Amino acid sequence: MTYSISIEQSKQLKTKPADETLGFGKYYTDHMFILDYTAEQGWHSPRIIPYQPISLDPAAKIFHYGQSVFEGLKAYRAEDGRLLLFRPDRNFKRLNISNARLSIPALDEQFALEALIKLLEVDQDWIPHSEGTSLYIRPFVIATESALGVAPSLEYKFMIILSPVGSYYAEGIHPVKIYVEPGYVRAVTGGVGNAKTAGNYAAGLKAQEEATEKGYSQVLWLDGVHKKFIEEVGSMNVFFKINGTVITPVLNGSILEGITRSSILELLEHMNIPVEQRQLSMEEVYQAYQDGTLEEAFGTGTAAVISPIGELNWRDEKIIIQEGRTGELAATLYHTLTSIQHGRIEGPAGWVVEIPQLKKA
Amino acid sequence: MTYSISIEQSKQLKTKPADETLGFGKYYTDHMFILDYTAEQGWHSPRIIPYQPISLDPAAKIFHYGQSVFEGLKAYRAEDGRLLLFRPDRNFKRLNISNARLSIPALDEQFALEALIKLLEVDQDWIPHSEGTSLYIRPFVIATESALGVAPSLEYKFMIILSPVGSYYAEGIHPVKIYVEPGYVRAVTGGVGNAKTAGNYAAGLKAQEEATEKGYSQVLWLDGVHKKFIEEVGSMNVFFKINGTVITPVLNGSILEGITRSSILELLEHMNIPVEQRQLSMEEVYQAYQDGTLEEAFGTGTAAVISPIGELNWRDEKIIIQEGRTGELAATLYHTLTSIQHGRIEGPAGWVVEIPQLKKA
Ligand SMILES: Cc1ncc(COP(=O)(O)O)c(C=O)c1O
Ligand SMILES: Cc1ncc(COP(=O)(O)O)c(C=O)c1O
Repeated sequence: MTYSISIEQSKQLKTKPADETLGFGKYYTDHMFILDYTAEQGWHSPRIIPYQPISLDPAAKIFHYGQSVFEGLKAYRAEDGRLLLFRPDRNFKRLNISNARLSIPALDEQFALEALIKLLEVDQDWIPHSEGTSLYIRPFVIATESALGVAPSLEYKFMIILSPVGSYYAEGIHPVKIYVEPGYVRAVTGGVGNAKTAGNYAAGLKAQEEATEKGYSQVLWLDGVHKKFIEEVGSMNVFFKINGTVITPVLNGSILEGITRSSILELLEHMNIPVEQRQLSMEEVYQAYQDGTLEEAFGTGTAAVISPIGELNWRDEKIIIQEGRTGELAATLYHTLTSIQHGRIEGPAGWVVEIPQLKKA
Repeated sequence: MTYSISIEQSKQLKTKPADETLGFGKYYTDHMFILDYTAEQGWHSPRIIPYQPISLDPAAKIFHYGQSVFEGLKAYRAEDGRLLLFRPDRNFKRLNISNARLSIPALDEQFALEALIKLLEVDQDWIPHSEGTSLYIRPFVIATESALGVAPSLEYKFMIILSPVGSYYAEGIHPVKIYVEPGYVRAVTGGVGNAKTAGNYAAGLKAQEEATEKGYSQVLWLDGVHKKFIEEVGSMNVFFKINGTVITPVLNGSILEGITRSSILELLEHMNIPVEQRQLSMEEVYQAYQDGTLEEAFGTGTAAVISPIGELNWRDEKIIIQEGRTGELAATLYHTLTSIQHGRIEGPAGWVVEIPQLKKA
């Protein structure tokens, strides 16, 4: 496609929030990117415009049938002043995998990445400076046709919004307590669990709420068929180190293929640590715990990068891992991956993409 | 709650489409109802306003995490001029069941029904006159808080929109061909299949598309665990008459409790026809077909009321039912239920609710 992106500069720039107050997904930058789709014109009219509300008919399909997909990645400010993205091509590739599953027309991945980089150029001052902060990037597609028949929409909007986010570990990396969900199910083989689509997150809210009430910060999902095999955590993939080997659930169609997961797998291989992608039951994890061979457990995802797991509650048994402290492998991986993301050390070719910077007047 | 509903009349009424051109969910009436929710104020500010686009922040949770529920029911114009609703209390009850599953604050069911009746009073001229037509009613709740953290929204909108719809059976009731889906799964026990929430419909689009390509109008979903037991059709519950007994899948947490389903069950009981609500495998249906005891099959739902099934495609075997014609029981039930809905015969107490009519100037 040979698109040209129109840019309408915001007349009144917002005051940027202080880095300490950022939190997650509370503030949005001055601009956003939009691309429209109609059955006749395909994807068209790419534009960067001031961040603003969008106006939709109450019968727009997104409100009724949840036909939507999204992505999440981050832009980092390196110590040497460069502005960096981490494997953004992977996010747009995954967005198209999600699109295909949700009967949404494919996007031009290369163009979507160009649009993101253009938007980041315009809003580059929004990438925060403090250690651990970043600019969270949310590309998403929503079905906008106004029609109540249950069928794929004939109209869509692809948008990118940006949100400066605080450090996930303001007080240093610390382990989380996780509740192994015995009843609720997030996704099942044959469903949409491997797509990043709205309904998967709606389906997890209730279990998450109940886990929070019990004092756990996240839910570990088990497979929907046997309620036995480990799937993933809320918005993280999950890894266990048992007797020297790192095990992560194999991609089975019901979990998301995390970009952090893929990156960690590559790093582990590089470090010559034995890795297995396979079915893993809670039974096996519990047995390892009893035998004293459960060495570490951690989640991986864009938000936290690595999130060590200090406790798992399974059938009211508390499985305490590393005495509730961060394990050595988790710490090393966190350090390595964040160092690559922030340009302190060099990662594999193509992992880090630099955002061109505008000359300041 | 003691709310008073404000009404802002539309200054420019739309031209109503001709009954023959209505179709489904393409036209909307002159007004809509909105009720807002904030954590501080609860549900508040009920209002009827001109039908218009709504404006939402691009970070509104509905766009990203699909936290939403909806309902579907119809208003009918009786031959004697009365305006009728069919069991609307059931829809608002089910809306609250869906709300609870999706971590959405409950609505006052009684008030929601009052609001609907008030809206119908205002837009009563939109209830079409021709045989088989009706006014489709779509109550829905969407999460509107602008925040990217995955957690229940702190803000919502409950809305009701109305859409005049054409006759489902313009050319007389006719059987449909249905594809028994072998791979894709809509919902699983522990998931959100028994809630009327957006993600369930998004999850079904792909299978529906593929079935359409194969020449089938709908998908019959099997259970997500064994891919063996019959669940429901796209937006219908399903019934089989085998050897004189009517069998419908039992409510197991992964199918919707249809209001037409409940009503049909009551009618069957009244007719002294043996009914079973239980697990039913495709194997059993196929066996009955082979034995010659598969007498009828039909779907039930608000849109079609009764939809006879003339053919099921299971593992590429074509199961032809009633030689592809409408069975006697389906025809009788269709006739009885539509007669009750249109006020031609009297149904059980409370099934039909009359909408007050404004005196015309
Ligand atoms: C369900 C789910 N699993 C896993 C992940 C981790 O994926 P990634 O590493 O690409 O952020 C996410 C977050 O994006 C997610 O939402
Ligand atoms: C998934 C699903 N099942 C069944 C039904 C039938 O329910 P009802 O009879 O209340 O219309 C519907 C339609 O509302 C539906 O969406």
